[in-house]
Amino acid sequence: MREVAVVGVGQSKFGRISDMTLAELAWQAVKQALQDAGITQKDVEMVSFSNVGGWSSEPLPAIAVNEYSGVSGVGTYRVEAACASGSAALATAHSLVASGAVDIALAVGVEKMTEVPTPMAVELIGRSGNYFWEFSQFGLTFPGYYALYATAYMNEHSATEEDLASVAVKNHYYASYNENASFQKRITVEDVLKSKYVAWPLKLYDCSPITDGAAAVVLASEDAARKLTDTPVWIRGIGYASDTSNLSKRPNFLSLRAAREAAQKAYKKSGIDPSRPHRQIDVAEVHDCFTIAEIIAYEDLGFAPRGGGHVLAREGETYKGGLIAVNLDGGLKAKGHPIGATGVSMAAEITKQLRQQVRGERQADIVKGAGLAHNVGGTGHYAYVSVFSLKKS
Amino acid sequence: MREVAVVGVGQSKFGRISDMTLAELAWQAVKQALQDAGITQKDVEMVSFSNVGGWSSEPLPAIAVNEYSGVSGVGTYRVEAACASGSAALATAHSLVASGAVDIALAVGVEKMTEVPTPMAVELIGRSGNYFWEFSQFGLTFPGYYALYATAYMNEHSATEEDLASVAVKNHYYASYNENASFQKRITVEDVLKSKYVAWPLKLYDCSPITDGAAAVVLASEDAARKLTDTPVWIRGIGYASDTSNLSKRPNFLSLRAAREAAQKAYKKSGIDPSRPHRQIDVAEVHDCFTIAEIIAYEDLGFAPRGGGHVLAREGETYKGGLIAVNLDGGLKAKGHPIGATGVSMAAEITKQLRQQVRGERQADIVKGAGLAHNVGGTGHYAYVSVFSLKKS
Repeated sequence: MREVAVVGVGQSKFGRISDMTLAELAWQAVKQALQDAGITQKDVEMVSFSNVGGWSSEPLPAIAVNEYSGVSGVGTYRVEAACASGSAALATAHSLVASGAVDIALAVGVEKMTEVPTPMAVELIGRSGNYFWEFSQFGLTFPGYYALYATAYMNEHSATEEDLASVAVKNHYYASYNENASFQKRITVEDVLKSKYVAWPLKLYDCSPITDGAAAVVLASEDAARKLTDTPVWIRGIGYASDTSNLSKRPNFLSLRAAREAAQKAYKKSGIDPSRPHRQIDVAEVHDCFTIAEIIAYEDLGFAPRGGGHVLAREGETYKGGLIAVNLDGGLKAKGHPIGATGVSMAAEITKQLRQQVRGERQADIVKGAGLAHNVGGTGHYAYVSVFSLKKS
Repeated sequence: MREVAVVGVGQSKFGRISDMTLAELAWQAVKQALQDAGITQKDVEMVSFSNVGGWSSEPLPAIAVNEYSGVSGVGTYRVEAACASGSAALATAHSLVASGAVDIALAVGVEKMTEVPTPMAVELIGRSGNYFWEFSQFGLTFPGYYALYATAYMNEHSATEEDLASVAVKNHYYASYNENASFQKRITVEDVLKSKYVAWPLKLYDCSPITDGAAAVVLASEDAARKLTDTPVWIRGIGYASDTSNLSKRPNFLSLRAAREAAQKAYKKSGIDPSRPHRQIDVAEVHDCFTIAEIIAYEDLGFAPRGGGHVLAREGETYKGGLIAVNLDGGLKAKGHPIGATGVSMAAEITKQLRQQVRGERQADIVKGAGLAHNVGGTGHYAYVSVFSLKKS
């Protein structure tokens, strides 16, 4: 397999972006990524386009969006894996470069979810659980799904609503330093506890927002990367797995099997010791669509033992200077979660972190030279875990 | 790049399939493909799932469909490139195997378009042209788009409605021997000419039908393929390109630039002489969503000079025994066009042809040992051209 590096990254402002079309929004990210890589559109051989869609009547926007970005003509496809779509775009683009099919590929993720009213967005997202049994029969939507996880976890491990809240507090803290984040206001545990219940025990401030946003990364083969940059960030390994969408078939609601398997695969490919991955990783992006999801992610990734995730959160071990720095961009919770863009944005953030190009407080200490992105689709239907490193394998 | 072979293929009946769910339909193809490859679900490492969707309220069916097929757990994503989605699934699965990321991948394409009434299907497909300018402003749908191509072509090259009809006659002829085809009835030029106009000069019998169907192929690395089969069919090269979706920006309506470029790339990767590709290829599947599309495909692929496509059709040169055998399964026109399944079905058909496993009249004479699939999305937005061969490169 050829080595593949991230050589350019870009990201739009995340939030409610009502003054741009989908194509204009994507271009915000693509433009930065091309400039960052020092290339132009004609250097791109393939565009792996991530977008879930359903927020407007335009069903298949890849071509129109690519055209607006001036990358018309190249090979392209749209990839979807629910909220992990961006990482699926990264994984397929990675293998196109790794195989030698192309030397330079662009992964673009974009979503414009505020085109529909929020209740409708919640419904549309809800259909991405188990449509037939759980959505259409019981009306389950995502806050409800993750409330099941939260109640199971709190019951099993004596975790508290304060523990959940501490995740939101951390992520808002770092988002306050991120000019691209949806929410740049710090909050307290008290603020979270006082916010309205959405689905007990999850309150408004436990939930990631409906978001518009775009992100882009340029991937290059080793030869191409050497010519373009002195600081390539190598993709050391991408693990992927899936699981039943039917919650009645899951053994429990305490862990996501797909995420555990994806992590194991990624660690194996990357030479990371799965029993103590935080010893080799400086900074992680994890899929905190709800606060409970970040706590479970700590465990699924091996940062904490089973039942120890909430302790990590409670004790502040995932702030800078702790066991491992997590979601220093604010995470899905406070940066926002434009579902097709999220995975690509994670890759962009880890790249900037490893290059030490993040301004101020939210730059991680880069000692070990590696970062990780953990991206989940559905209620654990899909998981992609990617390991990035300053050193190639 | 590692060599990649097709080692198993499967296909459902194409047509109006009202007694199966999407998952049941997909399983018809997956089951055959696994059996044909001599593997079980646990051998599959990745599922590249092709489905455009929009025909039901279930937005993201990949996981539910995979689960029904017993391949829950593996890495998976859905890929969409309009009517070329199946080939995009093949291309991404190919690169996953070629790169070494996985040894065995399954590409599955499925579509159940008759879930909505035909006029609604025509509208939904119509949105996949240029949504903003052409669909929402002018109401253009696909018969209208391809009628523009047909009128331009007939005007420029003095082609006739009879020439167009000859394509339908050939494809219905071969479909009459294909038990999986939607239409198994032979027709005459007279039948086509007497059928109702849909969009002049295209009549009902110039158009491919709204179709339900599924197809699946198993891809394997060279090592895995050698263990599984004595007749691996190697993927020699896949070319891909895209083009503006905006017809006002196309220089003319006589050719699809994306298809020409995809073919050139595929020929280069496969060692095929682009000036006379038919000298190295026994059998081709081409994207005949409308009869004019097959004629233009002959030219875009280099089987005929510019303006010579309709002569090939008129003179029967794309029947068995002619210059090159095209669409011996009936093509989109008569086999049917379940849009997410079509590209995968093309790969399955070419594999069976090269293995000489097609029964009777519609088995091509395999002398050169190579076949080709040409798959177009939108009005030429996407094109994928794949070359398959009994010999590896």
